[in-house]
Amino acid sequence: MESKLPDVGTSIFTKMTGLANAHGALNLSQGFPEFDTPTKLKQALAEQTLAGYNQYAPSPGIPALQQEIAALVARRYHQDIDAAAQVTVTAGATEALFVAIQALVREGDEVIVFDPAYDSYRPAVELAGGKTVHIPLNAPDYAIDWTLVSSKVTDKTRAIIINSPHNPSAKTLKQVDLDSLKALLGQHDIYLISDEVYEHITFDGASHLSVLRDPALSERAFVISSFGKTFHCTGWKMGYCVAPPALSSEFRKIHQFVNFSSFTPAQFALAEMLRDAPEHVDELSDFYQQKRDVLVQALAPSRFNILPSEGTYFLLLDYSDISTLDDVTFCQQLVEKSGVAAIPLSVFYENPTQDKIIRLCFAKETDTLIAAAEKLCQL
Amino acid sequence: MESKLPDVGTSIFTKMTGLANAHGALNLSQGFPEFDTPTKLKQALAEQTLAGYNQYAPSPGIPALQQEIAALVARRYHQDIDAAAQVTVTAGATEALFVAIQALVREGDEVIVFDPAYDSYRPAVELAGGKTVHIPLNAPDYAIDWTLVSSKVTDKTRAIIINSPHNPSAKTLKQVDLDSLKALLGQHDIYLISDEVYEHITFDGASHLSVLRDPALSERAFVISSFGKTFHCTGWKMGYCVAPPALSSEFRKIHQFVNFSSFTPAQFALAEMLRDAPEHVDELSDFYQQKRDVLVQALAPSRFNILPSEGTYFLLLDYSDISTLDDVTFCQQLVEKSGVAAIPLSVFYENPTQDKIIRLCFAKETDTLIAAAEKLCQL
Ligand SMILES: CSCCC(=O)C(=O)O
Ligand SMILES: CSCCC(=O)C(=O)O
Repeated sequence: MESKLPDVGTSIFTKMTGLANAHGALNLSQGFPEFDTPTKLKQALAEQTLAGYNQYAPSPGIPALQQEIAALVARRYHQDIDAAAQVTVTAGATEALFVAIQALVREGDEVIVFDPAYDSYRPAVELAGGKTVHIPLNAPDYAIDWTLVSSKVTDKTRAIIINSPHNPSAKTLKQVDLDSLKALLGQHDIYLISDEVYEHITFDGASHLSVLRDPALSERAFVISSFGKTFHCTGWKMGYCVAPPALSSEFRKIHQFVNFSSFTPAQFALAEMLRDAPEHVDELSDFYQQKRDVLVQALAPSRFNILPSEGTYFLLLDYSDISTLDDVTFCQQLVEKSGVAAIPLSVFYENPTQDKIIRLCFAKETDTLIAAAEKLCQL
Repeated sequence: MESKLPDVGTSIFTKMTGLANAHGALNLSQGFPEFDTPTKLKQALAEQTLAGYNQYAPSPGIPALQQEIAALVARRYHQDIDAAAQVTVTAGATEALFVAIQALVREGDEVIVFDPAYDSYRPAVELAGGKTVHIPLNAPDYAIDWTLVSSKVTDKTRAIIINSPHNPSAKTLKQVDLDSLKALLGQHDIYLISDEVYEHITFDGASHLSVLRDPALSERAFVISSFGKTFHCTGWKMGYCVAPPALSSEFRKIHQFVNFSSFTPAQFALAEMLRDAPEHVDELSDFYQQKRDVLVQALAPSRFNILPSEGTYFLLLDYSDISTLDDVTFCQQLVEKSGVAAIPLSVFYENPTQDKIIRLCFAKETDTLIAAAEKLCQL
């Protein structure tokens, strides 16, 4: 059988986690927390399962969770959204991204993405019959050249995918970026997919500039988030999409045939958690900033060049003072010889750069971060 | 925004459950159990969540669950499959169907489906750029005319979707059907998607004739099943796909971008349940046969014509002796005036028949079945 995705193999995250396990290495590659889901949330799930309802949820999500998501948006971004008409609960942000792309992209459409880009964007666009147009961002600042973006818009451009805080660069979009984006959307009939899965992880006092803050942007946007990132439960595969009613309606037509509904007891448990423990969300940035600072400090004596991390749970390291190997080979040796698994940055590019940069995930216990840094300091 | 699925509205199941709730009717429409998930399985999930691992599972599923699924196939169908290479755990059978269709169907391909057909097949094929070719099955026996099927195969035919035990007709495929199917697959380069979500619910001593029993069929097939149906946990959205390694590899390329992985604690819990309580699966047919018999007996005095149910948890009723209304209107009145929600059969057809047939779900408490039958006996 010939392949619908001839260029796709096993994802880099699966591969590196496999290598980390095979070599007993410290796994700072795939992005997931080493620590567990909050006890309160786990208990809520256990109770909801034991005493609660284990059959289909409504396809868009249970009303209690839709409402708590709307309340979160109101609290964090000062915008009122219509919970019933605009919020759809999904099987993780991955499903939400896939469905939003399926809802938008038709045969021959173009979708603008910024490289380095999350690995699911391109195959999702291609499966819908579209084509991704890649705009490279460059180290060390990974800034978007909006004039270049403008020049890439054609009659076929259907959507732009943005991602802030950005995986893997750990950069955030600034007001000037959103202003440029707004100008662009004002001039063209294009839609926005805003991947905001790290929305609650921003550092050094900066607030997340969600697309949801600005109706001029959100009126044409699918805004996607992830409970896995926010509540340390990446294995629950719970996320959601906020979009205007007409866009949500198209999103839901497809969602009902992709997943129909998401794990019912987890929906009740997350609704409880959001209602009863808002401080978890509010404290998340501080929690991860401390992790970042531990790792950065422990790496200070190393020969790596540390790039700034403004958000997400990732940190980029430039190893050009250490080795001339390409980043894939460097990561291979790192996991085998140094016992640390990382992700090579080139895999996030359509046209791999020659950059000597790797990505570390710092959603790990302090001991793990220090142990990994010690190994890296020996290079 | 124009629609990718202009013909699709809210699914009939969502609509009828909504009407049932609005009218306080007994809900025998959407297919889900009124009774709860086995306590053992719920406890296993609670324990796995509280003490276990809540981060990403491997994208194809945790090895323990893959192995228990392979053991189940060996025990029930006497075939050895390679757990690691052939079993992929999904977010319900809905995701598995969607992904198998995405893996197979290319722009312009045709897919043969039998009407009445489950509502997700057609939109999934259309989103992949293909077209469904509908072969109607007729009441009361819903038998497949394989000569007609043969005549519908063209150069563009990419796949056939079969479903046994069949939703909504409650019929099962017989050996003669599988032989005809085998002859057809031998003559043409086409693939098979076998929707076997009710595989463990067959009545009157008949064994389920899984495609997995016959390598001549399974070597070109995606075989799809559902834990929701088997373990009364439709809200968990856990299912799987068994396919040959090369087909599984294509399936997984897409699955990793649709859902990546399924709810981790539920995978561990289901692996435990399959290992420690094989009797649940083995007793499921008897359990549901009793439900069927209660409902059939309670309906005996009614003016409905009861069609035979060979498997699934559905029963068809012909109301032509009661009313000349079309089935959609009849179901509307039934939920409003009689307080019983059912599904009109015409919605499962591309070209709706004039049949006067409705579908009842008997995955309900005995009291509910008897109360519903009493209301129906008054018509
Ligand atoms: C779904 S596995 C990938 C996890 C992740 O978001 C990352 O490592 O970038
Ligand atoms: C996913 S809702 C539909 C449930 C079902 O399988 C049916 O009622 O036929």
